Amino acid sequence: MIERLAIIGVGLIGGSLARALREAGAVRQVIGCGRGLANLERARDLGVVDLLTQDPAEAVTGADMVFVSVPLGAMRGVFEAIRGRLDPDAVVTDGGSVKGSVVADASGVFGMVPPRLVPGHPIAGTEHSGVEASFADLYRQRRVILTPLPETESDALARVTAMWETCGAEVTCMSVAHHDEVLAATSHLPHMLAFGLVDALARMRENDEIFRYAAGGFRDFTRIASSNPVMWRDICLANREALSAMLARFGIEMTDLAESIRSADGERLLAIFERAKAARDRYVDAAPRD
Amino acid sequence: MIERLAIIGVGLIGGSLARALREAGAVRQVIGCGRGLANLERARDLGVVDLLTQDPAEAVTGADMVFVSVPLGAMRGVFEAIRGRLDPDAVVTDGGSVKGSVVADASGVFGMVPPRLVPGHPIAGTEHSGVEASFADLYRQRRVILTPLPETESDALARVTAMWETCGAEVTCMSVAHHDEVLAATSHLPHMLAFGLVDALARMRENDEIFRYAAGGFRDFTRIASSNPVMWRDICLANREALSAMLARFGIEMTDLAESIRSADGERLLAIFERAKAARDRYVDAAPRD
Repeated sequence: MIERLAIIGVGLIGGSLARALREAGAVRQVIGCGRGLANLERARDLGVVDLLTQDPAEAVTGADMVFVSVPLGAMRGVFEAIRGRLDPDAVVTDGGSVKGSVVADASGVFGMVPPRLVPGHPIAGTEHSGVEASFADLYRQRRVILTPLPETESDALARVTAMWETCGAEVTCMSVAHHDEVLAATSHLPHMLAFGLVDALARMRENDEIFRYAAGGFRDFTRIASSNPVMWRDICLANREALSAMLARFGIEMTDLAESIRSADGERLLAIFERAKAARDRYVDAAPRD
Repeated sequence: MIERLAIIGVGLIGGSLARALREAGAVRQVIGCGRGLANLERARDLGVVDLLTQDPAEAVTGADMVFVSVPLGAMRGVFEAIRGRLDPDAVVTDGGSVKGSVVADASGVFGMVPPRLVPGHPIAGTEHSGVEASFADLYRQRRVILTPLPETESDALARVTAMWETCGAEVTCMSVAHHDEVLAATSHLPHMLAFGLVDALARMRENDEIFRYAAGGFRDFTRIASSNPVMWRDICLANREALSAMLARFGIEMTDLAESIRSADGERLLAIFERAKAARDRYVDAAPRD
């Protein structure tokens, strides 16, 4: 049982965690913290949080579990605000999409990575954002990756693991660097391709006409280009090393593909498309749900 | 009224055309032609065609409308088979995704582009293929692009236009070259990116693990990588000039994006993402349906 949960940043991710834990009866009290008062009041009206404050230091006072779900660019500021204000037993975890930058921010602010900080990343979300979009089932059958460090205390890790399992998620642990590489491949790179494709088309002279003839597949393919630009700028900056490596790898793949097209090498094209189709079909068969 | 419609290649595209015209009472008789007898018999059992034959020359005999919906790589063979066997008044049209290659194939076989050939491309489809997947509403509120040539007879164009309008489609005309550029941008390039991304990930050492952490957006983004590899090889070969140009344009965009990430240029990244999001949101608002 969590006695007092502080959610710093009450949007889709933080709000859904609070809802799931409340629904499971796994938390006694939730305090929501954020910069916008109207959003916090909405969260209270919706029954997502019991108490609200705009001051992170106040939010963590007396909390035994702290969940930081602010944009990556705001993590460091939150750590600065709560430094020296955490209860000694309090466990801190977060929902940031890049773990290296969160660990670096924490280490910079606290002078070390706090042993009761468990960096985490729930692999879940929808096209919508904000507390209004939050719901208790967001994490059901979803994966949550935790990236504990050698200095992370095992009971802190166990508490965060149990918290996510209560929400119906499957928890996996991996290193910070590996997390950032895996996410660069499966999430950050695809977003760059969708943003890059739509922007390339938008910059073409007859772009209104171009988009008019885009068929159904285009809508699916470019859905992620509707994601929040500020959030994605932060992710790119935070994970620029792993993402740059993936962009380079993808560049080699596309150079190969373009060369096969230019030289009309049908066999090589077929091999690429067949390998991709087989991998994609295997992935869909294996994926838990959409 | 179409007296006798010959569908050469009875799959999703050809089957759906037959179904739509029958449902509208706009065709008296449909003859289906293809290489696989079992598929043709299935089409007859489903009520999609009345008659069947494996010989294209027989199929077009007595037909006043001929629809060729075979893979691009098989177009030339069909034209060879029907040369000299068409009724003088018969109108021929097709459903190929690339128009330049169809026109070149026709011109090569007939010694000129036949004045009663109206090259066309219905911008419609689903993930599924085959006559079993065909349905009468496939073309409703979809666009069909026709690419008549200077030598195309206007009554042939009018008849094909009316045929598609009967199916509920919106018909647009454009030049062969423009069609192939527009489709390279909105369909062929996105397919290359989806195939290329999935293949790049599949070639990574720990690819099983990589795919395990792919979230919901990845499924949408890569759906088109499950498309038919042979069909896409044919499209790449048939449209390699326009597609190569689009790949080069996209390469420049991605080089710019990658450089912005490497140099941590947050402002430039934000500008790209905001422009893309705005264009994508505008497109979705304008798109008729999905």
